[in-house]
Amino acid sequence: MEYIVSDRVKTLKPSAIREIFKYAADPTVVSLSAGNPAPEAFPIQAIAEISNKILNEEPVAALQYSFTEGYPPLRRTVGEFMKNEYNVGRDFDDLIITSGAQQVMDLLTKSMVNEGDTVICEAPSFIGSLNSFRSYNARLCGIPLEPDGMNLEALESALKNEKNVRFIYIISNFQNPSGVTTSLEKRKAIYELAKKYGVMILEDNPYGELRISGENVAPIKSFDEDGIVVYAGSFSKILSPGMRLGYVIAPKPVVAKMVVCKQGEDVHTNTWAQMVAHRFMTEYDFAGHLKGLREIYRKKAAFCMELLDKYLVPNKITYQPIEGGLFIWCRLPGGADMLDFCKQAVLRKVCVVPGNAFLTDEGEQCSSFRINFSTPTDEQLEKGIKILGELAKEIL
Amino acid sequence: MEYIVSDRVKTLKPSAIREIFKYAADPTVVSLSAGNPAPEAFPIQAIAEISNKILNEEPVAALQYSFTEGYPPLRRTVGEFMKNEYNVGRDFDDLIITSGAQQVMDLLTKSMVNEGDTVICEAPSFIGSLNSFRSYNARLCGIPLEPDGMNLEALESALKNEKNVRFIYIISNFQNPSGVTTSLEKRKAIYELAKKYGVMILEDNPYGELRISGENVAPIKSFDEDGIVVYAGSFSKILSPGMRLGYVIAPKPVVAKMVVCKQGEDVHTNTWAQMVAHRFMTEYDFAGHLKGLREIYRKKAAFCMELLDKYLVPNKITYQPIEGGLFIWCRLPGGADMLDFCKQAVLRKVCVVPGNAFLTDEGEQCSSFRINFSTPTDEQLEKGIKILGELAKEIL
Repeated sequence: MEYIVSDRVKTLKPSAIREIFKYAADPTVVSLSAGNPAPEAFPIQAIAEISNKILNEEPVAALQYSFTEGYPPLRRTVGEFMKNEYNVGRDFDDLIITSGAQQVMDLLTKSMVNEGDTVICEAPSFIGSLNSFRSYNARLCGIPLEPDGMNLEALESALKNEKNVRFIYIISNFQNPSGVTTSLEKRKAIYELAKKYGVMILEDNPYGELRISGENVAPIKSFDEDGIVVYAGSFSKILSPGMRLGYVIAPKPVVAKMVVCKQGEDVHTNTWAQMVAHRFMTEYDFAGHLKGLREIYRKKAAFCMELLDKYLVPNKITYQPIEGGLFIWCRLPGGADMLDFCKQAVLRKVCVVPGNAFLTDEGEQCSSFRINFSTPTDEQLEKGIKILGELAKEIL
Repeated sequence: MEYIVSDRVKTLKPSAIREIFKYAADPTVVSLSAGNPAPEAFPIQAIAEISNKILNEEPVAALQYSFTEGYPPLRRTVGEFMKNEYNVGRDFDDLIITSGAQQVMDLLTKSMVNEGDTVICEAPSFIGSLNSFRSYNARLCGIPLEPDGMNLEALESALKNEKNVRFIYIISNFQNPSGVTTSLEKRKAIYELAKKYGVMILEDNPYGELRISGENVAPIKSFDEDGIVVYAGSFSKILSPGMRLGYVIAPKPVVAKMVVCKQGEDVHTNTWAQMVAHRFMTEYDFAGHLKGLREIYRKKAAFCMELLDKYLVPNKITYQPIEGGLFIWCRLPGGADMLDFCKQAVLRKVCVVPGNAFLTDEGEQCSSFRINFSTPTDEQLEKGIKILGELAKEIL
């Protein structure tokens, strides 16, 4: 039988990263290609304790069907946390729990984007989100990313000229893959532009708690008095990605449509995970845990940047130092063949992600690749970056 | 701001059942409207033990990112179980774990159905699935359900006359809401018709293990030598719905597209739940557990049918006795106003689901309502059905 495939998924390909992730499961390969939190960042003991309590004290609640909107105590706790810490959330907003922040991208696109409508995003941007938009046949319009955020002229031009723009997608802190944090000035400017052109903003902030230097920048959602920002939050980097827990804070009419879509997708998010997150935030030292995480990543990032300075920079590869997150974006000198470099690296058993995987058009020219420093051990990181340096010395 | 909504969700409404589910949370209301497994059917002790072991023995595996296709040992175990027990699965098939069987409906529709394409379903059918199809703007074509399955003439006529039919959706055992099990003869006939017209079948079997009398009927997927059947399985009724665990067994090209869509929806399913299910199937007496479940539901169903015979049948409400599942479909006499009956019932603090909620067109005439006997206690069941009987006596 010839299987008929819907138009929306006809050209959809598996995420290059998740494919590389499989390849990187080969234990002889040093993987700098994943986006996994450091395993030592998981509060294993606390999760085991809480899980035990839940399954002893309220097992039926954990195992029975629950509400599509999420476990009410967790919704309240996250809402209070985001309001108190970041002034995110107004009376016109609602908050629901999702199966990872990935589901926010999916549900919002499903709710608001017709096939052929446009989504504006940073170029480069997170491939998982881009694929989510693509899977509803959205047209992607990439805006060049500068060290302080999107190029505003290109953004306004897109808002003016593109048809049926539905939202602007921004990873505001320590962007994946570039590491860029959008400045406060640009956040305000982007907000004003969105308002001017009647377009929503999807602010995705999975790495916000992982700042290792500098000062926090207010989320775009924190100055949303007009109800035009959808905020996607995640537990993947602060608790556990295997739990698949995220949340969305957005105006009520938008959330209501997302809830109906979620009913049809997975009914509700795993209840055990929601209950664990709730107790972890309320019965444990959550602030202390976040501080500990930052310590872990501060060390890892510093070590990684030392290695880059030692092995790559002398061999013509540059990078922008980061203030947080899990990724460093490395740039080859002009004229170098980045794809060939990444392939040669794999042959030498080091895996990085070619930068064009993060573009709205993968065929476009790109001279960067992404390194992740949270997953590998220090030994693996040194071994991998050393090999990259040798390779660069030989072929660049 | 006026929020623009995509065409596909414009007319999509929250599931009437999930809305009633909220209403039924009122402790003074006797809810016969849910579809929850009986809490005493959860293997709480085993799940607590296993969870403890996992978080002690392999916590990082449980908490880290995992494969979109699912936890490999669970995929293998479920595949072997379905092959050995039901001869489901061929070399051309693949199996992935989903976030509840609900996600199978979603992913298949997303992968194969363009907006405006047709999905054929039983009338009545499970509203959650219908809403999943609707959420991609599929046209629904309902085929009248008889006590042994779909009306075959109506099915062939639809296959002949409807445009771009993508698949036939069937809940083969103890259908929700009707309780109907499609006979072996009709299963074969439906398979042949699908083959003849080049259309896939989506066989949904969440209740298959809950047979309380009679003999198992072979799944349609068990005679799929042509690669035209997509089989959706669920852990919700045999382990726990709060875990959100389901699976799909389907031809590899179809599964491959579903995997890409799943990446964009939730990356992967909660790992803890997958590991718990795997250990429960392999380290505990899974067959004994299923046998125990059937005992629980056999008693509950028998008690419910006794009550119906005692209170409803003498008052002009009829029903078709069931051989399994969680639901009984009750029919009012001709000319009676079913919606008014359900509203009056709610005023007397008994909640049932009006039958038209399960039709492809909710505006259509329907004289039935659905009762669930697995969620209420025996006392609640008797109280609720007694009230329905009194109401029937008064107004029918």
